[in-house]
Amino acid sequence: MAASSVPKFTLTPTKPIPTLLRRRSHLPCKAISTTSTSTTSDSYWSSTTADIESHLDLTLPLRHPLLVHHPMRHLSLHSPPRTLAPALCVAACELVCGAPRERALDAACALHLMHAASNAHERLPTIALPRDDDDEGGVVRHAFGPNIELLTPDGILPLGYEMVARSAAAAEDPKRTLRVVLEMARAMGSEGYASAQYAEFHAEGSERFVAERKYGGLYACGAACGAVMGGAEEEVVERLRRFGLYVGMLRHHGGLFLEGDEDLKSLALMELEMFESDKVEILSSLVYV
Amino acid sequence: MAASSVPKFTLTPTKPIPTLLRRRSHLPCKAISTTSTSTTSDSYWSSTTADIESHLDLTLPLRHPLLVHHPMRHLSLHSPPRTLAPALCVAACELVCGAPRERALDAACALHLMHAASNAHERLPTIALPRDDDDEGGVVRHAFGPNIELLTPDGILPLGYEMVARSAAAAEDPKRTLRVVLEMARAMGSEGYASAQYAEFHAEGSERFVAERKYGGLYACGAACGAVMGGAEEEVVERLRRFGLYVGMLRHHGGLFLEGDEDLKSLALMELEMFESDKVEILSSLVYV
Repeated sequence: MAASSVPKFTLTPTKPIPTLLRRRSHLPCKAISTTSTSTTSDSYWSSTTADIESHLDLTLPLRHPLLVHHPMRHLSLHSPPRTLAPALCVAACELVCGAPRERALDAACALHLMHAASNAHERLPTIALPRDDDDEGGVVRHAFGPNIELLTPDGILPLGYEMVARSAAAAEDPKRTLRVVLEMARAMGSEGYASAQYAEFHAEGSERFVAERKYGGLYACGAACGAVMGGAEEEVVERLRRFGLYVGMLRHHGGLFLEGDEDLKSLALMELEMFESDKVEILSSLVYV
Repeated sequence: MAASSVPKFTLTPTKPIPTLLRRRSHLPCKAISTTSTSTTSDSYWSSTTADIESHLDLTLPLRHPLLVHHPMRHLSLHSPPRTLAPALCVAACELVCGAPRERALDAACALHLMHAASNAHERLPTIALPRDDDDEGGVVRHAFGPNIELLTPDGILPLGYEMVARSAAAAEDPKRTLRVVLEMARAMGSEGYASAQYAEFHAEGSERFVAERKYGGLYACGAACGAVMGGAEEEVVERLRRFGLYVGMLRHHGGLFLEGDEDLKSLALMELEMFESDKVEILSSLVYV
């Protein structure tokens, strides 16, 4: 990833811009037709999500002790809100190297688990409010009781790091795999997802701050990790990270920014202009929410 | 770490056994004098702990937003119960390679942070009990209120992985650093520390199970990670892991096993018999609690 190494992708303007994006430069974002590719894209995201879930299903079998593994499976597989950030990890890897998706599957699952763990804790504060609070208001229903939903994510989160560190990719390229560990730790930590949870809890920080650090950061991390696992140069990693940031903000916080949503779409699509793969149309479908 | 590579340490019985341990073979454990080395040992553990805390102090400066960083510092530096598991990480590294302690310092800090994060969550369940419980019984006092002490560890834990992944050692030897990530994830996860928390919460599992998975596992992880960072062969890593396991059980759960404590001491000291370094006496001091 040294700056002097030969980049696999360049920003040379003479390179042909993919059809969808060439059209984009003449039309406002909203007018871009995605009808022809929407079925392919939908099917891509569904099948990728299914692959991730099935890989997780195998990694987290329902086994003894059930007291531990039942809530782990529930909070990992059935409870977290849907996000395409892990699938974007796989798509970014396929975009930059055309490698089989297995190469990024462990990283994608890890991101899913980290999101699941953080989300489970996030749903708890209402329960954990001091007892002089209203007994009825704002109570979240939990499948296992708050103590288990407090402790279980502390078992889920390390499994994410374990999946990355023990993956086949880790043996092949430990340096890039370690970079993925670093990316995920930063995306989820006190400068990332956790900082947005704090801001929400304290009702501090702008909506944009929360959007950037929360699902913006989650998608950015997914895209960057996929690019890293795919062997991309630093510039490509950063482009895909920005694409993920805009897409995550749009998909999970869209509408917050009023006409700014259109800017986010344009910014996201601009980051894909350097790529020639047929995967570009699939990735660009994420901006149409 | 391939089995075919030349080991730096062997188990050849003709090698001289360090003085303290040679004496041990003729005396019951309790009768071993540690007077001559206790000052050196005490000073070693104090200075190593101080080095770890000072490295953490620099890594976690009190900065804005204070709402995030004040509880992070408090729960990382001032709140967790004392353990020498992180210091053992440094000691094991020095034992196997005589390298400067800086080589294992990030890993040691990471282990400290992971323990701090798990411990903070562990102290919360009493607060999070359903509201139909006794209003007075078993309430734990918290510096920041339960919601902050719930969310803060989710910022502390990723910082641990980040410290490992961005360390100088990571750039020098990504493969061994990734192994450290794996060791820590397994030690803290649903088969390790977290499984002991579950067992304690449900009042299930034997005391021995909890002792093995909790502080036994924490010390085992510290020792193994230090050995890995020091470049040790697999056999040496496993010996130091077992030493850490026995020491952690003794130091934090000692007395649980009645006369078994003496067996744990002997088992721990036996694992050190292969080493010739002057650090052996320092490590062996950990069994005298």
